[in-house]
Amino acid sequence: MIVNGSHYRTNWLKGSTVFMIDQNALPFEFRIHEARTCSETCDAIRTMITRGAGAIGAAAGFAMAQAYLESGGDQQFIEKAKNGIESTRPTAHNLFYAVEKVYKAGKTSVEMALKEAQRLADENVTDAELIAGYGNELIKNNSRILTHCNAGWLGFVDWGSALAPVYKAHRDGKNIFVYADETRPRSQGARLTAWELVNEGVPHTIVPDNAGAYLMSKGIIDLIIVGADRIAANGDTANKIGTFEKAIVAREFGIPFYIAAPFSTVDFSLADGRDIPIEERSQEEVLYITGPDEFGKIHRIRTAAYNSTALNPAFDVTPAEYITAFITEKGIIRPNNADLSRFKSNR
Amino acid sequence: MIVNGSHYRTNWLKGSTVFMIDQNALPFEFRIHEARTCSETCDAIRTMITRGAGAIGAAAGFAMAQAYLESGGDQQFIEKAKNGIESTRPTAHNLFYAVEKVYKAGKTSVEMALKEAQRLADENVTDAELIAGYGNELIKNNSRILTHCNAGWLGFVDWGSALAPVYKAHRDGKNIFVYADETRPRSQGARLTAWELVNEGVPHTIVPDNAGAYLMSKGIIDLIIVGADRIAANGDTANKIGTFEKAIVAREFGIPFYIAAPFSTVDFSLADGRDIPIEERSQEEVLYITGPDEFGKIHRIRTAAYNSTALNPAFDVTPAEYITAFITEKGIIRPNNADLSRFKSNR
Repeated sequence: MIVNGSHYRTNWLKGSTVFMIDQNALPFEFRIHEARTCSETCDAIRTMITRGAGAIGAAAGFAMAQAYLESGGDQQFIEKAKNGIESTRPTAHNLFYAVEKVYKAGKTSVEMALKEAQRLADENVTDAELIAGYGNELIKNNSRILTHCNAGWLGFVDWGSALAPVYKAHRDGKNIFVYADETRPRSQGARLTAWELVNEGVPHTIVPDNAGAYLMSKGIIDLIIVGADRIAANGDTANKIGTFEKAIVAREFGIPFYIAAPFSTVDFSLADGRDIPIEERSQEEVLYITGPDEFGKIHRIRTAAYNSTALNPAFDVTPAEYITAFITEKGIIRPNNADLSRFKSNR
Repeated sequence: MIVNGSHYRTNWLKGSTVFMIDQNALPFEFRIHEARTCSETCDAIRTMITRGAGAIGAAAGFAMAQAYLESGGDQQFIEKAKNGIESTRPTAHNLFYAVEKVYKAGKTSVEMALKEAQRLADENVTDAELIAGYGNELIKNNSRILTHCNAGWLGFVDWGSALAPVYKAHRDGKNIFVYADETRPRSQGARLTAWELVNEGVPHTIVPDNAGAYLMSKGIIDLIIVGADRIAANGDTANKIGTFEKAIVAREFGIPFYIAAPFSTVDFSLADGRDIPIEERSQEEVLYITGPDEFGKIHRIRTAAYNSTALNPAFDVTPAEYITAFITEKGIIRPNNADLSRFKSNR
């Protein structure tokens, strides 16, 4: 993606440092964060400086490679680092997928770990481009698309998952309009998705999460595309909190509901979604919000009554029955066990 | 309701001034706003210094009485004032109900207008207490209740609609727990409902609007109670944006979904909900948010990417088929035309 005239990936490894676009500073400031050690990369993943299933996967792969660089051959250090990376964000399967691959490659040599981490980041981009192509076929001219959270360029290494087809359709000259859910509590829709859409010149507007049923009942949403953080073998899908609610409402109105994700998001070890761990994040993310005043000065303000608490489950699980299809790098796949498993051997 | 040891109504008329708890200052500051003229009261309704169907109704009645006080018998002034009040908030039926009643009473004398406005405010309190009693019968010990927006004390003159049964159950010593939807974009749940619940000592937590399906799928919500801004003759109900979405999800999980509202909210002139006007509010309410920093200083900050727009429909309409029952001052009523119409002649 192009920012200020230059092409950027969401995160990348150079030497022993992971560089990442600081997604906590966006959309108000474009800043590159440098994580010089595995531990610093873990912190950046935990605090969501880099976020989104695909971007987390790439960063986690880089972190595992950093661990090999730092280890001096100390196997205990490697194991501890692996556990540390895996504990940063418990829901995103791409993280475990990447860590495992780089961990295994590192058993041969540190160089192989670095190569594998880089290959995974590149694969992430290739997958996203393929998803863009397949998903584009589902988007007709004049389509009005609802999306939740950010599964765009910033949620991947490039292109995105849910937004990749949108960018492809727009570049192909289709007339499209995107409704971006605000996505409380972290507002990834209002902040990251909207920022991407502004950057890419895609016509759009931000909608409060509460407006979903209203918009769908008025017949102004043609299709919904969202990303995924973990997909069980039967197609049950964990994604940003609120996804399940949109899927239920979409089915009520007969609106197609698509999950866009590469196969690295599929956790074949889980038969269904019941055992997907759901990350509980700090209540502070609900009770406080940060942003610039009219002079651009950043403030952190209280959003809620004093002396109240808040719940902050970061994800929910949408059962496969609510999902019209998956948009993957291997094509459009219906959500049933047989179809998903068909590709298992290929990974 | 008691604040700092004194009993307050949400708004009241004294002399020719309408006093109102400033709901834009809450929960961070408790402040009384004074609207000295009909026009000032209209401004306060429009800017939501006073808000919530019942409180809007009472304030609108007072505004109509103020108009008679100011008119010096000028009928054109009266008509203009009536139109002005009616244009402040197009969805809340209680507003039209109260304005009409006071308008008619004023045809006899200014004194009758004042008396009628006061009677309507008192009726609002009586209705709420009756709703509290009937609704309390639906709340079992250990109930976990989800509510949306604020249909509490602040949304009425006293007690509330959706929260009135909650307060009654709590005072009766029942062990209850309230999940308060944040209710973006204006956060009435996180700000007003939570503030009321803190004040009243009711155990509760704030939840992002996105968490509805998650909470309901986990089986931790026993019932949902919300208020209403306008109910059509067939039971279709306009309420705060997001209500319809919760109702769809509640039905999906077989969770009872109750609307608590007095009959002054029922618009018998509308056969169904299709013709209920939905207020579109400024996009600024989505794109900016106001609150205190750690030192208590209030800031208005941007929540979203620059150069993006936002939609801000303030209400949606939940079809009667999704509503388990109405909790009214005349008892629990099933949502069908016959049942609602039965009480029409009584008003």
